[in-house]
Amino acid sequence: MENFVAYNPTKVIFGKGCISKLAHEVSQYGSRALVLIGRGSVKTNGILSQVLAQLEKANVTYSLFEGIKSNPIYQDADRAVAQARAFKAEVIVAVGGGSVIDSAKAIAVGYYVEHSVWDFYIRKAPAPQRALPILAVLTLAATGTEMNMFTVLQNDATKQKVGYGSPLMYPKVSFLDPEFTYSVSANYTAYGIADLISHCLEQYFDKSHSPLSDSFTIEAIRLAMEYGIKVMENLYDYDARANLMWLATVALNGALSAGKKGGDWGVHAIEHTLSVLFDIPHGAGLSIVYPAWLKYFYPQIESKLTLLAQRIISPAAKAQDFIQHLEEFYQNIQTPIRLREVNILPDKHNLILDNLVQTNANGSFFKMKKTDYEQIIQLMS
Amino acid sequence: MENFVAYNPTKVIFGKGCISKLAHEVSQYGSRALVLIGRGSVKTNGILSQVLAQLEKANVTYSLFEGIKSNPIYQDADRAVAQARAFKAEVIVAVGGGSVIDSAKAIAVGYYVEHSVWDFYIRKAPAPQRALPILAVLTLAATGTEMNMFTVLQNDATKQKVGYGSPLMYPKVSFLDPEFTYSVSANYTAYGIADLISHCLEQYFDKSHSPLSDSFTIEAIRLAMEYGIKVMENLYDYDARANLMWLATVALNGALSAGKKGGDWGVHAIEHTLSVLFDIPHGAGLSIVYPAWLKYFYPQIESKLTLLAQRIISPAAKAQDFIQHLEEFYQNIQTPIRLREVNILPDKHNLILDNLVQTNANGSFFKMKKTDYEQIIQLMS
Repeated sequence: MENFVAYNPTKVIFGKGCISKLAHEVSQYGSRALVLIGRGSVKTNGILSQVLAQLEKANVTYSLFEGIKSNPIYQDADRAVAQARAFKAEVIVAVGGGSVIDSAKAIAVGYYVEHSVWDFYIRKAPAPQRALPILAVLTLAATGTEMNMFTVLQNDATKQKVGYGSPLMYPKVSFLDPEFTYSVSANYTAYGIADLISHCLEQYFDKSHSPLSDSFTIEAIRLAMEYGIKVMENLYDYDARANLMWLATVALNGALSAGKKGGDWGVHAIEHTLSVLFDIPHGAGLSIVYPAWLKYFYPQIESKLTLLAQRIISPAAKAQDFIQHLEEFYQNIQTPIRLREVNILPDKHNLILDNLVQTNANGSFFKMKKTDYEQIIQLMS
Repeated sequence: MENFVAYNPTKVIFGKGCISKLAHEVSQYGSRALVLIGRGSVKTNGILSQVLAQLEKANVTYSLFEGIKSNPIYQDADRAVAQARAFKAEVIVAVGGGSVIDSAKAIAVGYYVEHSVWDFYIRKAPAPQRALPILAVLTLAATGTEMNMFTVLQNDATKQKVGYGSPLMYPKVSFLDPEFTYSVSANYTAYGIADLISHCLEQYFDKSHSPLSDSFTIEAIRLAMEYGIKVMENLYDYDARANLMWLATVALNGALSAGKKGGDWGVHAIEHTLSVLFDIPHGAGLSIVYPAWLKYFYPQIESKLTLLAQRIISPAAKAQDFIQHLEEFYQNIQTPIRLREVNILPDKHNLILDNLVQTNANGSFFKMKKTDYEQIIQLMS
């Protein structure tokens, strides 16, 4: 076991009807809210109106910022900062999935500085000293941002997708109602599952060993597969939605990293190139990259793959079986496992390679250079 | 899955040498500390001097309160409140095991009220509104109090042992150095293991089902047994000490109760009677009560016992096998499994029965009355 710090001050209020607690919670933080949403699905499915009713109940006035993209860009966060300042917002209420909450984190710290939020991401600006409090109403089980201090934004001009983290960015309160994910389509539900499983795998394969965290991680993957199959049979299965929602949160709230070295994150680095070049959903990119990465680094990870296979498939299963099992699972829930399935054909391979080289896409432990990228691209094609 | 709230703001700094962070952390909370210890083992094993060196480094002056008992009594907490007030303490630094940290929680809230801390425990006083910040330096892996909001104290005169909880009681920072548990004797190490396993079992058997929490709980029990055997072979095995220390924390920090109904706690209620009547260690009492409780409620818990047996022993194991496995494990680590092993002989059975009836010792889900107590006492004898 490695030395570590376990700290996560976010309060998660979980379950059917939990939105009824929003009025009480928001009133602890202010009376003027910037309400942040994506491209409007929360307006049509009734979730936004439930949030606004809670704000009204708490006598909180609000200003609505609409239009955060699913691969969120820093310019939208900068525009929302300007709107929040003009409105004199005291709290941010983010209603949406990972993109909306990640943007809220940027806005929260951007509110108190004069520069673009992007300067934090590219480490041009010093670490933030203050932040607006964030309340998050989650509508998609996937990224785990609702209970951690991380955010990812992108810059379309420079083709960069960059992560950032600050303890100021933990949401104060996150509301997780599994029914709020009923209207997520089958494909985006599947991308969310691929995302949460990839978070488990990134932490599992970091060349450290923490028996409890590793065991918890294996259980999380096993259950994500079990409930992933169930939710595809019925998108309105409360139990399946609830389990997946909590699994996605636990996958990246620190519970799986205690006593470990923090994860590799090389697969995420490669996927960021796919998302930024082709605007494919993050989870779809991950389900393409992971099988290839596992095959490429197989000799170095065989013993940990064996454990996954034995615990998830059967006591007699072999390391290689887990890779096949993962690919079959992704095929079952209809997430892509090859680039061609998302219309990224061989004529684009050099574009991918150039971006990987240029951004030096890498993991913390499994290092890659040009020849490695080339072979991983072949395995993805 | 049940609705639930997940919230735990304690920062845990874990690993060899973590005490070096105490100076920095304590300086966030004050410059006058009440240092609370038990019966002095931390003076002889060098832990206290490391803590005091950190306080000196941070220019924190301190007042030492010594003598918290292993089954802590409210009068000591009241005396420590008086000492803390006279000293104008701004922060409490608790150095010890569960009894010291549980007492610190009482003192933290007692500091701001005029009545005895006991009035909180017996629900005579309203909930506390303020508390001194607590920093905890843990020296025993057992109760989990280092990362939760609960405390248990006892009243020798009325023969009551009562739990209490308040969000004000979360330690701000807890320092968990596995090397600080090297000097814990084999028998107290074993009692700590029995305590953490019982926390897992109390939450597991609460007539609710949360797949991830239940799976995590089973893994925690499995690993507690694995590292319990290892630590008994070598009390200076860092890896075993580290795993047990983190397991004890996770067993009661909320990670195993998400989506569940909060646990039964009937076994703890019975054990409190044993501790208060005979001053036996809490963990020793638990390893006596649990096998009896499992046998008595067997028909109601068979399916969940089967799952434990299959996952911890072998895929073909039966429910009954888990009870035998648990008893054998306790025998291996030399914790008692029958009353007679701690010299509580049949002539004391009526005394136990009377206290159980008088305190209405009960679980939240598995309800007991006099005839049930009688049979459970027989199974323990």
